[in-house]
Amino acid sequence: MAVTGSPAPGDARSVLARLDRGRPAALERLFRLLAIPSVSTDPTFHESCVEAAEWCAGALREIGFEARVEPTLGKPMVVGHWRGVPSAKRRSHVLFYGHYDVQPPDPLDEWTASPFDPLLADDPRYGPVIVARGASDDKGQLMTFVEAARAWIEAHGELPVDVSVLIEGEEESGSPSLAPFLAAHGDELRADVALVCDTGQWDAETPAITAFLRGLAFSEITISGPSRDLHSGLYGGPALNPLRVLSELLAALYHEDGRIAIEGFYDGVRDPSPAQLAAWRGLGFDESGFLGAVGLSAASGELRFGVLEQLWSRPTVEINGIVGGYGGPGTKTVIPARATAKLSFRLVPGQEPARILAALHRFVERRLPADARASFAHEGGSPAIGFDTSAPAFQAANRALEAEWGKTPAIVGCGASIPIVESFRSRLDMDTLLIGFALDDDRIHAPNEKYNLTSFNKGARSWARILAELGAIDDEVAR
Amino acid sequence: MAVTGSPAPGDARSVLARLDRGRPAALERLFRLLAIPSVSTDPTFHESCVEAAEWCAGALREIGFEARVEPTLGKPMVVGHWRGVPSAKRRSHVLFYGHYDVQPPDPLDEWTASPFDPLLADDPRYGPVIVARGASDDKGQLMTFVEAARAWIEAHGELPVDVSVLIEGEEESGSPSLAPFLAAHGDELRADVALVCDTGQWDAETPAITAFLRGLAFSEITISGPSRDLHSGLYGGPALNPLRVLSELLAALYHEDGRIAIEGFYDGVRDPSPAQLAAWRGLGFDESGFLGAVGLSAASGELRFGVLEQLWSRPTVEINGIVGGYGGPGTKTVIPARATAKLSFRLVPGQEPARILAALHRFVERRLPADARASFAHEGGSPAIGFDTSAPAFQAANRALEAEWGKTPAIVGCGASIPIVESFRSRLDMDTLLIGFALDDDRIHAPNEKYNLTSFNKGARSWARILAELGAIDDEVAR
Repeated sequence: MAVTGSPAPGDARSVLARLDRGRPAALERLFRLLAIPSVSTDPTFHESCVEAAEWCAGALREIGFEARVEPTLGKPMVVGHWRGVPSAKRRSHVLFYGHYDVQPPDPLDEWTASPFDPLLADDPRYGPVIVARGASDDKGQLMTFVEAARAWIEAHGELPVDVSVLIEGEEESGSPSLAPFLAAHGDELRADVALVCDTGQWDAETPAITAFLRGLAFSEITISGPSRDLHSGLYGGPALNPLRVLSELLAALYHEDGRIAIEGFYDGVRDPSPAQLAAWRGLGFDESGFLGAVGLSAASGELRFGVLEQLWSRPTVEINGIVGGYGGPGTKTVIPARATAKLSFRLVPGQEPARILAALHRFVERRLPADARASFAHEGGSPAIGFDTSAPAFQAANRALEAEWGKTPAIVGCGASIPIVESFRSRLDMDTLLIGFALDDDRIHAPNEKYNLTSFNKGARSWARILAELGAIDDEVAR
Repeated sequence: MAVTGSPAPGDARSVLARLDRGRPAALERLFRLLAIPSVSTDPTFHESCVEAAEWCAGALREIGFEARVEPTLGKPMVVGHWRGVPSAKRRSHVLFYGHYDVQPPDPLDEWTASPFDPLLADDPRYGPVIVARGASDDKGQLMTFVEAARAWIEAHGELPVDVSVLIEGEEESGSPSLAPFLAAHGDELRADVALVCDTGQWDAETPAITAFLRGLAFSEITISGPSRDLHSGLYGGPALNPLRVLSELLAALYHEDGRIAIEGFYDGVRDPSPAQLAAWRGLGFDESGFLGAVGLSAASGELRFGVLEQLWSRPTVEINGIVGGYGGPGTKTVIPARATAKLSFRLVPGQEPARILAALHRFVERRLPADARASFAHEGGSPAIGFDTSAPAFQAANRALEAEWGKTPAIVGCGASIPIVESFRSRLDMDTLLIGFALDDDRIHAPNEKYNLTSFNKGARSWARILAELGAIDDEVAR
């Protein structure tokens, strides 16, 4: 494969050469990890999860990391460190995060080969692709970093920055052990920046850095009316129906043009800058393809914004569930005593979850008719995250990706929060570089999951360059 | 007890005297029926239901009826006939309906005495009351008629009209055997008019005839949007949310003043006549008491109508249930692929269920946003019933009640449909006189159910007079 883009700075050139020469061995190592059925949601596979953790720790130790497997109440954590010789020069410290657990492979009969017997297949669009459960999510991505570190150490006997590694085994089952683990081991894991390789490229030719994540606030509203369920014949008409009150409140959340009608909801929200909008429009996002894939043809929501702008820069409120009255088969003529809706907000920078929930409470209280009462439960949230794209580490990654891919990376957003990023920020006060080499059509969580061989090879090369650029920041600071 | 009101016509005087003399024996007979725990919803009590049916048939045979117990797939039916000597004079024929089954007595520990060990208690407001499960609903009411018939036969050796009796044992469990039974035995049961003693008085001093029953139409609407459930972070904003669409549709059903916004909904509906309104207003209905009993203080619904007018003469639509998205504990940030609401309409004369459902379909289809689809299921209904209050049988009952109680009966409506009345009309083409002596505070379906001894005694006297007046119609016709 021809190496595109600018030449690598300084020491990276020999690392890239070593990566290119070592491809067969790297692929063999990835296949060994893929062969371990480390499904975290199914207790049957518990021993395989432990085996995958041990394998990862071994792979790190093999290249010179101090690495160990730490038990938790669930699946074990892998923790590794590589630290350079102490010197007068301050060395940067990065924490790489990945996960060794995978989704269940079901439905098994839709796989063309065994999900834990990895192979290279020929994809008509991409050429060779690695097919196995976890090939893309997240074993393939995780190993791009480990291979980059191996090549650095083999080429130079050291890494250009200090590197810690955290590999968890419960990402596919809600990461219940992560918060207590970060609380107990925060000091050991805290670094200058986290590197998370669990996202995708913009497209097969364009790398991406995810820089904007919407925040979240959620609430459950219960509207109460009559003191008990009523017969709709004996009371229908004069009796307040909480399902009507709830429907009217939920409908009132939205203006006709899609703007949210909660008073104060947009306080502090800024429209994306013209430069930002221009950059996003330059990405040539396929709105019809995105919507068409889920059976829709027209964008809902705020009519004055396109799909990408809505997802990456606009707050929303969504009704996630309604429960009230009779839900069984057939008919029951009841006026229920209460009705409940679950709501979640997606937030953008400038919005505080607590302030948004307070505004929701006022919105509801103001509109309650006589005899209706509202209560709120299960509330919480976390603010949006927007990384400083001018920060040295962000710019270093940007340069490295541009050099490897010959194209400016897409600086993208994500409409959802990514819990590990939120945890690193709130618990370790640490920003994250979200860089990954997956593609939208990698079929993660589905049969025949694949990872392009190009993603694997150029992913490793990208990390090799990113490590070099991060090391160069230190040199600049030292100069 | 002093007998109030006008003297009874003709032969009834001796019947009333016999009823008054026979009170202790009548009460003893009722107590024997109340002691049988004929709970139809609990299979444990099946034999007791059969026993109650046999007891009723025996009570009818004892006074000269041909009576039998007819098995069904569920609880048996009791059918009895008393026919006068054929003569040139046409004799009226009435069908009396009641039910021998009762609600379960739970919660047992809230009863002050055993529910199937009937007793007379002293009520501070009403004096002596009969306390037992079924005392009011419906064994006490049923026996008012049987005792009236007994006194007639004992006093005169005959009844003034031909009388058939149908006593079912599944009224408290949805009457599944009734429709097939009426289909099989319609010719035997069809009469000039049905008498149903399962309703209440207006108040302790005022009898009532129920003359207006609202009809019913019901439908289940499902709104579909995306082809699958979506993550509200990755799609929230641009993706159509069926729960929002549904909420907006349901909210749009109502104008701000409570009128229903479905186009054509009120076609054919007439406001109550000024005379009717004046009569209802004259009843002195306690709106605050009615609403306060279920925790409400203000009438909802159509603001220009009072509570009684709404319940008895105005159509409504009620939301009986909504199901969509996540309904479990806590939070799930989902945009569901579909959402469902169950609706029921209460109809008044002039409205056809099929026409109302078609209007609902048009209302929904017209308002669907792009990409939303609507489907309708579980639809059905029955029209409202308004009896001709000037019909001879109605007027006869009216005279008899006025004579017994010394007050004009309240001609009332019922917001709910009464299935047996609808069945008699649709299957046997027969109108019903809905006359009962229960009171709102009889605690039917609840612990410590009671029936005022006055209800029992004056109820029997009322039926004795009604039978006399119905017989007098025949005399008039013959004259």
